[in-house]
Amino acid sequence: MTLTAQSFTTLANGSVTSALGFRAGALAAGIKASGKPDLGIWTADADCVAAATFTPNKFPAAPVVLSRERVARGIARAVVFNAGNANACNGARGLADAREMTQLAADRLGIAPELVLIAETGIIGVPVPMDRVRAAMPRVEVRADGGHEAALAIMTTDTHVKEFAVSVDIGGHAVRIGAMTKGVGMIHPNMATMLAFIGSDASLELAFARTALKRAVDRTFNMITVDGDTSTNDSCFLLANGLSGAPPLAASSPDAERFSAALEAVCTDLARKMAADGEGASKLLQVDVTGAASEADARAAARAVVGSSLVKAALHGEDPNWGRIFCAVGNSSAQVDAGRAALWIGSVQVARDGVGTGVSKADASAQMHGSEVSMRIDLGLGSGSARAWGCDLTEAYVVENSAYST
Amino acid sequence: MTLTAQSFTTLANGSVTSALGFRAGALAAGIKASGKPDLGIWTADADCVAAATFTPNKFPAAPVVLSRERVARGIARAVVFNAGNANACNGARGLADAREMTQLAADRLGIAPELVLIAETGIIGVPVPMDRVRAAMPRVEVRADGGHEAALAIMTTDTHVKEFAVSVDIGGHAVRIGAMTKGVGMIHPNMATMLAFIGSDASLELAFARTALKRAVDRTFNMITVDGDTSTNDSCFLLANGLSGAPPLAASSPDAERFSAALEAVCTDLARKMAADGEGASKLLQVDVTGAASEADARAAARAVVGSSLVKAALHGEDPNWGRIFCAVGNSSAQVDAGRAALWIGSVQVARDGVGTGVSKADASAQMHGSEVSMRIDLGLGSGSARAWGCDLTEAYVVENSAYST
Repeated sequence: MTLTAQSFTTLANGSVTSALGFRAGALAAGIKASGKPDLGIWTADADCVAAATFTPNKFPAAPVVLSRERVARGIARAVVFNAGNANACNGARGLADAREMTQLAADRLGIAPELVLIAETGIIGVPVPMDRVRAAMPRVEVRADGGHEAALAIMTTDTHVKEFAVSVDIGGHAVRIGAMTKGVGMIHPNMATMLAFIGSDASLELAFARTALKRAVDRTFNMITVDGDTSTNDSCFLLANGLSGAPPLAASSPDAERFSAALEAVCTDLARKMAADGEGASKLLQVDVTGAASEADARAAARAVVGSSLVKAALHGEDPNWGRIFCAVGNSSAQVDAGRAALWIGSVQVARDGVGTGVSKADASAQMHGSEVSMRIDLGLGSGSARAWGCDLTEAYVVENSAYST
Repeated sequence: MTLTAQSFTTLANGSVTSALGFRAGALAAGIKASGKPDLGIWTADADCVAAATFTPNKFPAAPVVLSRERVARGIARAVVFNAGNANACNGARGLADAREMTQLAADRLGIAPELVLIAETGIIGVPVPMDRVRAAMPRVEVRADGGHEAALAIMTTDTHVKEFAVSVDIGGHAVRIGAMTKGVGMIHPNMATMLAFIGSDASLELAFARTALKRAVDRTFNMITVDGDTSTNDSCFLLANGLSGAPPLAASSPDAERFSAALEAVCTDLARKMAADGEGASKLLQVDVTGAASEADARAAARAVVGSSLVKAALHGEDPNWGRIFCAVGNSSAQVDAGRAALWIGSVQVARDGVGTGVSKADASAQMHGSEVSMRIDLGLGSGSARAWGCDLTEAYVVENSAYST
């Protein structure tokens, strides 16, 4: 289904304002204890077709509750955000604060508050310091070159800024997709929520925007894991303002798959960056599962491998402990015939028909050197395939997460 | 349902041979590289009603495949075991080796091989050194006081031996239940499979033995987690030889619940010991969930909390990061109303109606000192309750699991 890389081109210095008609800006409002930029607005010059995906966590944060309600209309123009306070587990006060924050941003932009979505990430269970937000919002300046500034401001425990943009030809017009994300795991409820902001100047029919976003998220952001937890605040927003002049896209359009592939490429790049920047991580792990009885099975098996603490610890030690990999697959919901499974670490086949090939540990371990390691499991049952990304489990992860709020 | 502790008494120096008519013995066959005892037999002086539970992993080890087949008859007399080699992912050769190992034990005991079950734990994907097993088996001596010797021989990465026994009055007769376990997690596919051996001199009807064991395992061994993985080798055996002279027990017997409670108490003690001895662990965590919509919901929520890497890391740092606890519950399958949830760490209530109570971090953190920490989540929805046990995530876990097989 996915087109080749030739169907789009990567934009230099890509950011969330790479598409035409998007602006962003941020400043330090004093929400982060570090004094770094922590409050910002990302907006479009025209009303956008808006789609979003949110955490399935049953303790959704106030910004998730509010954004989910507003994006249901399918139209939006801005996302206001803070990094430093998740505004989760704050009850009615949290929801009132989130509403006020969107009102403050709407006032600043001169638009209706119903057009403003919201994302927050940071400490849970502590009210947002709204006095600081009120004081700072009128000073937020949104600019067409403000994307990088915004990407810096949404960082929490991230060690690298995460931005990417592509251009894709749609009916003879260049359409741009620019995005930023933060998050160093599927989640870290305190400060490592996954947030993604994707802006395009494409003209998208709402139903297509929703299905294209869901497919891309399912194949990318939903296929990474750092620690198996899922945040109260995870949110992914797609705003499309139509300013490219390209013809409108619906699911049935000839160029729909071309746009979807470009969108998936943007999300893939950012998902890999998040997995590689997992808290304490030193290695990116890419796991392909092929030959599964179904795509759902392949997804479950691939996620089980990147999510296994034992596989992650073995990866850290460059230990080609392949029994742990099969064991993780065997704990997933995927159909397995133990006698048919094969396994490669890098380019070395370590198991065939469910048993070891006898390759030396040294040869297999050599495939685990470096900052990127790949594994492939073929289940020998069908044509289902999927790819997942994760990272190693290190002492640094434990240190980082042992004493966070105190 | 569970009776009070007064319904049974703990036996001093309890072991897997505490019940009448059980014997055990072990020796060093050279399977463990350390040269420590690694091969043994646990047997009864009479044919036993036999029940067992096994790993649901789809790559079951050869001993699991063979024991599952044999225990289906409901009768057994011995379990032969080795620690050092899991005999998993060894294909047809593994199954042949497992069969031969039971034959060797049967020859040593002078019984039919069909009466011998088998448990193995250790490295995956490496054939069992059968020449050493053949040489050693004739030297295994089973004795009525050999329980402790056997418990030492089944250890792998365990740092403490795990044994427990109780006596319970059944119809005026003392009935004993003696058990041993090994395992420092739900599993560690290399060397930390969970194995449990439970011997009783009760006379049990087979259907009751099976349901009583399943209930006890569901409430105890299945409610602990160290790292969320489930081994290819996990096995729990219950042998009842009827030698106490107590009247036979069926599910409808007046004393059935008394026996079940004693059995559960044995499993609870050993489950706590396993969680406390989790690889690298420094703290035992006990989590109670109350007020759930169902018992299944309570179990799911409790397991999610003890299984969360973020909760485990916070526990290690004595960080009362309660948002992580709610977040873990919110990721489980349990029904949740965020506005009704309450949370206690030790005796301090840190959240009520889904929001923080404002208790100081110092006061909450003080409840996390020491080697045992308790938490309680009340979901405010119904009467479902469950208890789970886990441990903290430490740097030592990562170190221990980063380089194991190599």
